[in-house]
Amino acid sequence: MSTLSVPPPSCLRKPLVVPQRHMFGPGPSNVPPRILEAGAKPVIGHMHPEIFEIMNDIKSGIQYVFQTRNRMTLAVSGTGHTAMECAIFNSVEPGESVLAAVNGIWGERAADMAERIGARVNTLVAPPGGYLTNSEIEKALSKHRPVVLFLAHGESSTGVLHPLDGIGELCHKYNCLLLVDSVASLGGAPLYMDQQGIDILYTGSQKVLNAPPGTAPISFSERACQKVFNRRTKPVSFFLDLNWLANYWGCDEKPSRMYHHTGPVTAFYSLRESLAVLSEEGLENSWKRHQNAAEHFYAGLEKLGLKLFVKEKHARLPTVTTIVAPHGYDWKEVTSYIMKTHNLEISGGLGPSVGLVLRVGLMGCNSSTEKVDMVLAALKDALEHCHRSKV
Amino acid sequence: MSTLSVPPPSCLRKPLVVPQRHMFGPGPSNVPPRILEAGAKPVIGHMHPEIFEIMNDIKSGIQYVFQTRNRMTLAVSGTGHTAMECAIFNSVEPGESVLAAVNGIWGERAADMAERIGARVNTLVAPPGGYLTNSEIEKALSKHRPVVLFLAHGESSTGVLHPLDGIGELCHKYNCLLLVDSVASLGGAPLYMDQQGIDILYTGSQKVLNAPPGTAPISFSERACQKVFNRRTKPVSFFLDLNWLANYWGCDEKPSRMYHHTGPVTAFYSLRESLAVLSEEGLENSWKRHQNAAEHFYAGLEKLGLKLFVKEKHARLPTVTTIVAPHGYDWKEVTSYIMKTHNLEISGGLGPSVGLVLRVGLMGCNSSTEKVDMVLAALKDALEHCHRSKV
Repeated sequence: MSTLSVPPPSCLRKPLVVPQRHMFGPGPSNVPPRILEAGAKPVIGHMHPEIFEIMNDIKSGIQYVFQTRNRMTLAVSGTGHTAMECAIFNSVEPGESVLAAVNGIWGERAADMAERIGARVNTLVAPPGGYLTNSEIEKALSKHRPVVLFLAHGESSTGVLHPLDGIGELCHKYNCLLLVDSVASLGGAPLYMDQQGIDILYTGSQKVLNAPPGTAPISFSERACQKVFNRRTKPVSFFLDLNWLANYWGCDEKPSRMYHHTGPVTAFYSLRESLAVLSEEGLENSWKRHQNAAEHFYAGLEKLGLKLFVKEKHARLPTVTTIVAPHGYDWKEVTSYIMKTHNLEISGGLGPSVGLVLRVGLMGCNSSTEKVDMVLAALKDALEHCHRSKV
Repeated sequence: MSTLSVPPPSCLRKPLVVPQRHMFGPGPSNVPPRILEAGAKPVIGHMHPEIFEIMNDIKSGIQYVFQTRNRMTLAVSGTGHTAMECAIFNSVEPGESVLAAVNGIWGERAADMAERIGARVNTLVAPPGGYLTNSEIEKALSKHRPVVLFLAHGESSTGVLHPLDGIGELCHKYNCLLLVDSVASLGGAPLYMDQQGIDILYTGSQKVLNAPPGTAPISFSERACQKVFNRRTKPVSFFLDLNWLANYWGCDEKPSRMYHHTGPVTAFYSLRESLAVLSEEGLENSWKRHQNAAEHFYAGLEKLGLKLFVKEKHARLPTVTTIVAPHGYDWKEVTSYIMKTHNLEISGGLGPSVGLVLRVGLMGCNSSTEKVDMVLAALKDALEHCHRSKV
């Protein structure tokens, strides 16, 4: 028991090299220097008063970007999937009914997560590139009587911005909580948590917020808390148990915060700064900017003879645009050519949209006419230089 | 649905200020500039070839610091608690028996986690500051026939370095997997995953590795994989499902990697760099340095009339030293005085050691005689200036 049998790896002797590239896929997005620099500030303790102040700033920032006054507002120490599990693990008990609206990959994943913890899951599937009407949703609520309805506001796999108005009221009529994924939409399209009756809302740090991936804002309404804090069983995860998280984030009535887990403090610095950037611009300005850039993009795509995957204009996600995969081309060759020649990431489809679309994400600092023109030029070049079958 | 009801928070208009301080508590530790700078490099995609190369570097680095040849070696996108849940969620099915060796808070938490997923949990409790003998462990294995034994190698709450030799063999004799938490010990004390028959081993990024909190190395032996990949039920977490993680980290047989979750790429840069730093120094040198600094610290504490909480020398964790709370003093006043006067964090007890001890962590770059002398000077000053009841 006293000799090393595995030598130090030679690959670690090479210096770390990371290329700078245009991140115009569905995320992560580019991170501006101000936010990267925030994340390189010194590490302090996860229970120091200064980090509690930063966490309080984050809470206020999330309340603003979510448009909510919910006290139970915090950031999960993980990516969007962690927030998704946090939402489902806390709000659903084994044997309960869950309804997942599926208009792309996110509804499928929510269904998978709920099944794993023993929920009875039903799905309500929209056609690819489409969305569900309120009457379809009401019919399903009335039939399945779920305790939670999952809905992706921004479906990054299909490029759909799902309409939300009226769905909160419908859910509450059937005593169901409305759980909304806004990972791809937050900051890029209008969203009003309180006014729209959303009970649980989460997002990720790496899209419009332009922070590195690794933290995920989440908020619970009073109605959601009523259910979460009156469970008969403990949530399957200690790490994501809202009783603990609420205390760590100072959202409960307890006089002091107890050690729960070691928060990723430097990721909190970046998240705080990204929320400050969005607050400085103002939500409405940011929504408008994303909408304008998207429309400029749609016009340019039309000129190139390319078609949008989402037919209905008002249901297009301004942050992630899905383009019908150009006829006669191999989509993989197109994205590879653009990466190689323009140092620029755009991506193919995901889940139900694989092979059907190209996806371009222009989020946060990347949402501008200049960046749109850059993508358009790259696409034009690719269409001219990639192989095309004769059709 | 068209007006903002929550205004931008004024707290976010203030610049982000983070103090520089000596992090001599049980973690997180200070992060050297090289590692902080790595984490501020540009964000690239979580599926780009360059990040796969960085992830491969991380895998090789973990194999070295764990002293293992396990193919199933990766870093979880989360803190130590996430790795703990990853280990338990994947290796335990509902109704199975789990044995948690409790010599501080970590065993308690492992027991809590296993209970939440429906395991039958038994605990084997060591006295505070003590540890379990191999014969006590064998008796419990024989009685409870667990599928997994949890053991904290470095118990940061009590300052115990739990002996490991022979426990792997005992576990295997009873067809049980040995799951070891090395969050506080890895890189600071000898540990040989393969030679010691450890089946699942995890650690955190923020202790001896000196990276920011937010990633957690983990490895599974062939024996552990046999169990994990032949489950009857799916693990409760999609995010932590080893089938998915193994593919994302290129540890399986599949020809390509599928999208699972958006890895915290900048945190991976820091982790990669921290593993490079430890590889450059060499594990044995790092172990020696931590041991030497700890012994220098013990001698200095004795001169101050302070007593160590862990009586047996060989069972003292070199990275986190527990000092018997000095008689007549209020421990909170001592730690506050040192923070205020010396800008230096040391901490009180945790879980079973609250009120009983002061805890000083000297990990990675902080493990040196210079830093030890700094802590000793601060302690001396505190003992002279803090209130002492007449006893």
